[in-house]
Amino acid sequence: MKRYKMILAYDGTCYAGWQVQPGMRTIQSECEKAILQVTGEEVRLHASGRTDTGVHARQQVAHFDLSEPLEPRRLLNGLNAVLDDDIRVMGLRQVAATFHARFSAVCKEYRYFIWNDRIVPPHLRLYRCSWSKPLHIDRMCAAAAMLVGEHDFSAFATSRGHGPEDMVRRITDLRIIRRGKEFVIIAASEGFLYKMVRSFAGYLLRVGEGAVPVEQTMEILQSCKRTARVPTADPRGLFLWKVIYR
Amino acid sequence: MKRYKMILAYDGTCYAGWQVQPGMRTIQSECEKAILQVTGEEVRLHASGRTDTGVHARQQVAHFDLSEPLEPRRLLNGLNAVLDDDIRVMGLRQVAATFHARFSAVCKEYRYFIWNDRIVPPHLRLYRCSWSKPLHIDRMCAAAAMLVGEHDFSAFATSRGHGPEDMVRRITDLRIIRRGKEFVIIAASEGFLYKMVRSFAGYLLRVGEGAVPVEQTMEILQSCKRTARVPTADPRGLFLWKVIYR
Repeated sequence: MKRYKMILAYDGTCYAGWQVQPGMRTIQSECEKAILQVTGEEVRLHASGRTDTGVHARQQVAHFDLSEPLEPRRLLNGLNAVLDDDIRVMGLRQVAATFHARFSAVCKEYRYFIWNDRIVPPHLRLYRCSWSKPLHIDRMCAAAAMLVGEHDFSAFATSRGHGPEDMVRRITDLRIIRRGKEFVIIAASEGFLYKMVRSFAGYLLRVGEGAVPVEQTMEILQSCKRTARVPTADPRGLFLWKVIYR
Repeated sequence: MKRYKMILAYDGTCYAGWQVQPGMRTIQSECEKAILQVTGEEVRLHASGRTDTGVHARQQVAHFDLSEPLEPRRLLNGLNAVLDDDIRVMGLRQVAATFHARFSAVCKEYRYFIWNDRIVPPHLRLYRCSWSKPLHIDRMCAAAAMLVGEHDFSAFATSRGHGPEDMVRRITDLRIIRRGKEFVIIAASEGFLYKMVRSFAGYLLRVGEGAVPVEQTMEILQSCKRTARVPTADPRGLFLWKVIYR
């Protein structure tokens, strides 16, 4: 068995997220089909993490094993020839059998893109969350800074509903950059909870427009309860930006 | 009659260009339908110029007349509510009856975007011409510089085929910017010939990859004959970037 590490980029608009689901078009199922078509082998793809319906990736990482090794460049070209052009294999190489796309990752970065205007330029419409109310970046930055560090993030995530879960995570970076009408929320962690980045985005948008005072942030975090004060933002603004390995 | 000046942005992917054509979905027909729906008036839209099938606009300008005046902000919001989100009205205001979107324009700028790699990131796939062979920007710049100025551009355009045409134009700017894998051709003129910018792009790509020597540029220009040495590049890379008025 030879193990391959693959870097994928995708436009999530037309997909029901990463994970294989019966009757749904997903990134994982499209990629597994492409690998079968190119290599003749039925593989299971393991990603660094799932992305939800409509979420994009600039750099998702996945691994798979082949019993018959194939030259990585040929494999990459073969896969890109077979896949629709909203999924691209950006890189592919053979790795040690100890590599695991999920468990070997030491840090993941997501970026959430907001267009602070009711009118979104057409070529960005699938990749930006549109927000018409004026946003105060200073408030958003202040609230974001309070969420950095190790906390129980129950108030900023959704339970996957498979029994008790450890809701403690360590957020190593959460900040906002502004470029004209565009606001970018950058979030980094070893691992995120379900819908966590979109919950951060939903909350920071509410703080930015003045609907929730910055000062409530610690109280909300410490409540460990998800309430309507933390909405989940539009998936189209979210990109899995990069995954870092040791 | 009140005259309105409208700034439009569009993703040309799903349209048969600007101009109304029977049985085709065009930008002009969609906008005229939207104006009818919002105002109840059947208008004729006049653009700064036509864009071809698949060509995009960051800033197209058009004018139209209404017999019953409407507040520009309400009109803009109404049109954006009715139009598909691949066409956006970015601005709208009332202007003097002497304003004409085509004849009052003093300069138009187009930008042609090339992704110099076989693999195009998915979120750019509809907005970049992909070119896998390495491009030498110095050669492209040298050839571009020779095309600036007033010339008969018969060798770099397609006749519209409606009888004799004046093929002389004055190109005020033609240059190439590189940002990593992205090459941007910037072209400015008071007016362009049919398929002229895509012909410049097709030619500069051939020069950049080394298929045509830079030195042939003057000979080709002076031949005043369109040949296979000047192909027409992929429309998806082209944006009408801005139109300047006195």
